[in-house]
Amino acid sequence: SNNFFLLAGPCAIEGEEMAFRIAEKVVEITNKLEIPYIFKGSFKKANRSRIDSFTGIGDEKALEILQKVSEKFDVPTVTDIHEVSDAVFAAKYVDVLQIPAFLVRQTDLVVAAAKTGKVVNLKKGQFMSPEAMKHAVQKVKDSGSDKAWVTDRGTMFGYQDMIVDFRGIPTMRQYAPTILDVTHSLQQPNQSAGVTGGRPDMIETIARAGIVNNVDGLFIETHFDPANAKSDGANMLHLDNLEKLLTNLVAIRKTINAL
Amino acid sequence: SNNFFLLAGPCAIEGEEMAFRIAEKVVEITNKLEIPYIFKGSFKKANRSRIDSFTGIGDEKALEILQKVSEKFDVPTVTDIHEVSDAVFAAKYVDVLQIPAFLVRQTDLVVAAAKTGKVVNLKKGQFMSPEAMKHAVQKVKDSGSDKAWVTDRGTMFGYQDMIVDFRGIPTMRQYAPTILDVTHSLQQPNQSAGVTGGRPDMIETIARAGIVNNVDGLFIETHFDPANAKSDGANMLHLDNLEKLLTNLVAIRKTINAL
Amino acid sequence: SNNFFLLAGPCAIEGEEMAFRIAEKVVEITNKLEIPYIFKGSFKKANRSRIDSFTGIGDEKALEILQKVSEKFDVPTVTDIHEVSDAVFAAKYVDVLQIPAFLVRQTDLVVAAAKTGKVVNLKKGQFMSPEAMKHAVQKVKDSGSDKAWVTDRGTMFGYQDMIVDFRGIPTMRQYAPTILDVTHSLQQPNQSAGVTGGRPDMIETIARAGIVNNVDGLFIETHFDPANAKSDGANMLHLDNLEKLLTNLVAIRKTINAL
Amino acid sequence: SNNFFLLAGPCAIEGEEMAFRIAEKVVEITNKLEIPYIFKGSFKKANRSRIDSFTGIGDEKALEILQKVSEKFDVPTVTDIHEVSDAVFAAKYVDVLQIPAFLVRQTDLVVAAAKTGKVVNLKKGQFMSPEAMKHAVQKVKDSGSDKAWVTDRGTMFGYQDMIVDFRGIPTMRQYAPTILDVTHSLQQPNQSAGVTGGRPDMIETIARAGIVNNVDGLFIETHFDPANAKSDGANMLHLDNLEKLLTNLVAIRKTINAL
Repeated sequence: SNNFFLLAGPCAIEGEEMAFRIAEKVVEITNKLEIPYIFKGSFKKANRSRIDSFTGIGDEKALEILQKVSEKFDVPTVTDIHEVSDAVFAAKYVDVLQIPAFLVRQTDLVVAAAKTGKVVNLKKGQFMSPEAMKHAVQKVKDSGSDKAWVTDRGTMFGYQDMIVDFRGIPTMRQYAPTILDVTHSLQQPNQSAGVTGGRPDMIETIARAGIVNNVDGLFIETHFDPANAKSDGANMLHLDNLEKLLTNLVAIRKTINAL
Repeated sequence: SNNFFLLAGPCAIEGEEMAFRIAEKVVEITNKLEIPYIFKGSFKKANRSRIDSFTGIGDEKALEILQKVSEKFDVPTVTDIHEVSDAVFAAKYVDVLQIPAFLVRQTDLVVAAAKTGKVVNLKKGQFMSPEAMKHAVQKVKDSGSDKAWVTDRGTMFGYQDMIVDFRGIPTMRQYAPTILDVTHSLQQPNQSAGVTGGRPDMIETIARAGIVNNVDGLFIETHFDPANAKSDGANMLHLDNLEKLLTNLVAIRKTINAL
Repeated sequence: SNNFFLLAGPCAIEGEEMAFRIAEKVVEITNKLEIPYIFKGSFKKANRSRIDSFTGIGDEKALEILQKVSEKFDVPTVTDIHEVSDAVFAAKYVDVLQIPAFLVRQTDLVVAAAKTGKVVNLKKGQFMSPEAMKHAVQKVKDSGSDKAWVTDRGTMFGYQDMIVDFRGIPTMRQYAPTILDVTHSLQQPNQSAGVTGGRPDMIETIARAGIVNNVDGLFIETHFDPANAKSDGANMLHLDNLEKLLTNLVAIRKTINAL
Repeated sequence: SNNFFLLAGPCAIEGEEMAFRIAEKVVEITNKLEIPYIFKGSFKKANRSRIDSFTGIGDEKALEILQKVSEKFDVPTVTDIHEVSDAVFAAKYVDVLQIPAFLVRQTDLVVAAAKTGKVVNLKKGQFMSPEAMKHAVQKVKDSGSDKAWVTDRGTMFGYQDMIVDFRGIPTMRQYAPTILDVTHSLQQPNQSAGVTGGRPDMIETIARAGIVNNVDGLFIETHFDPANAKSDGANMLHLDNLEKLLTNLVAIRKTINAL
């Protein structure tokens, strides 16, 4: 349909009920709007600022929930991996393996993900230029796979803020299908309390600027109760606001497609 | 018509012929597309990197050309001022006084511009946050004028690059009508030769992201021969490419207006 | 004596009494430590964030106080200028004309300052690379003067912070004698209240890093009551702490000179 | 002796001969200057920009060379680890486990390193504030170890440059002994060829600024033939220049210790 696709879901898999509840709602909306949908959920949060932050409900348990979501709602799924051994393990349960931004320079991890034959979604490091993602994509290709995606999740701008460089979208689309991670791009890291802040009021601003520039996909963390989500609550989109947002974005994309 | 307005023209007024040639073409396009148009030209380039760069053809001569453009094509005009004494002087010839980004913190200059009764277009300093423009607008208001505009021309990102923070558009629109200066936002300053570089290939990317976020106006430097323009040639839009760009942007804005 | 020199004083000249009180104390300390001393005071604050901020006690009155300080304590003086007409005017009263960081790209201002025959102290814009100061120095030389100094006052690092790039010191010393403005380098601009913040606890850290790298001079704003200074109180050094600081720095410089 | 300590060596262990040759020279110099010395060498380069870059001679082989260096020259050693399983493995051979900057947010890795009982050297991410390192150190403490060090290796400054924020040294010294990684701080990443550049001409500038601010240790990559080193050649110190550099730094530190 020439529409953008969507990776969306909670930050972490907190349990089966919440995963189903979010998936059901997003499936309903994306079916209506003809947006190809991939359910997103982390089976483990490996890089929290503080050791006392929530890290997960158990790796296998969370991955099994991802698999159930896929079967129940007939959607592909994506999760992020952190060590080489995660690649083969997670590939049994999901369709897309995501390399976190901090880890995208770890060659072994990228190669291990590529060798599973799954799509590898490479997040641009906050410290990397769009142009540098060419080399990350090349590592997937050199591993014998042509299934690389790249995702922009913002770039460091001073210690406590991030910025999205929209010049990066046409640049990275030369290398691979390019996704804009709207919600993480609006994080405000390095806050003094050790809990990352955010600017969820700017979600539509950033999403529109991506869609109008032909980004291939969007990545949005969403929850029915962001304030009580166990991670990333500060920058998530409330699930109740997703339909209106996507409706606007589809209208914009249709205009763009007709130019 | 709820369309965006356009400030466009050459960087500097190099002579009457070139000013007329550019104005004629832009008027023709903007009439067709129903875009309110303000002709832009600097009467003096006061802040070139190098002393041997072109600075102008004579202040009064350039301002008279601006006035002739206004009369001949029935369009308002805008020029930038650099010292307090320029305010009253330039106000005799043009409709909008623009405060350059480097000078927007100079209170006397802002106040002098405001007191002429003309619209004051305040460019956000490359070193300023969108939020800090609230204080610049307040200086105009405190001078008894409600005619302030703000313009984003990008933000410093390392020594040799600029970036546009699109979160600034909804932020600054709370203070005043907000313009996106597309071409200066794509400058790459501090190049070793003392001549600013640019990324004109990204003009449509940046312009679209602004229009889709309801920016009130666009600022575009354009020339029929950018390579031989006497200033800012590295980031200008070729005049031949203006109509296609604006046509796309108007289509996007119409979609946005209907959301 | 191969020691560094010092530009120090209050931010703004608030009155004769405070100027004398500060000058007397600094003269006493610098005489003891054999540091060549130049008294610093702004006759006008032209670029405050907010229009309701203090801007001065009257231009001529403030300049006369600078002259009296010079005569009474037998020290040269420095003040900053903002418009071309200030150059000749201020040159009657002071020995060094300082070009503020926001204005260092204004060619007319730099040329006017150079033509007075006074030393021109060019502050590096927060948005400029050290290498770009070569062109600013060249503007002074091209105006027939060889009396240029450059001063680093920090570089923009995100919206609300500044950072000192110490690679800039050896770089700029190739162009002209180089001063490190310790106190302004520790400003934190764009704070939401419209009043610049600061990190005066880091004054000695930054000063030491400059002295150990052979910077030619230091610039320090100091006041006997920073909390009640009419500008820049947030980053000034308390006058009571100056002697200990300079004593440490002189010891470091002596070691460096002997390497 | 109240002197600073030194982590130095090649980037990667390329073989026994080169490791011995570098260790021998550094041991000779540091013995003379009474600098506690820890030999540094990576057993594996896991995060190269390009997949065709050198990654190592074999993990076990490289670790055995580190152990031989330790025995032959009676010095402790340090190497960096990239996955949880590396921690116990590498701890058999070396005295200090280093967490690379990109990986310092990976909780499992930090915890695994801490649990070996070895010193854990935490490199500040290029995307992290000095203050955020408090949480990284706390993860070591919460794992039952008090043996954490932190190392500054520069902070992202635009896409293609890094900068050292010297305010970070007194800040991080509140959390743990603090090391300045002089050579990596001078990297220039994201270069178009996929090979990181550097500014080795600035090594002494950065090192002096750290030593004068009481940094506890220095980290310097050095090689007898940087141009032919298999990694990081662009920013290494030539081994022939080490003695003069350290001699200067020791003189500065002695002055500081006496203040």
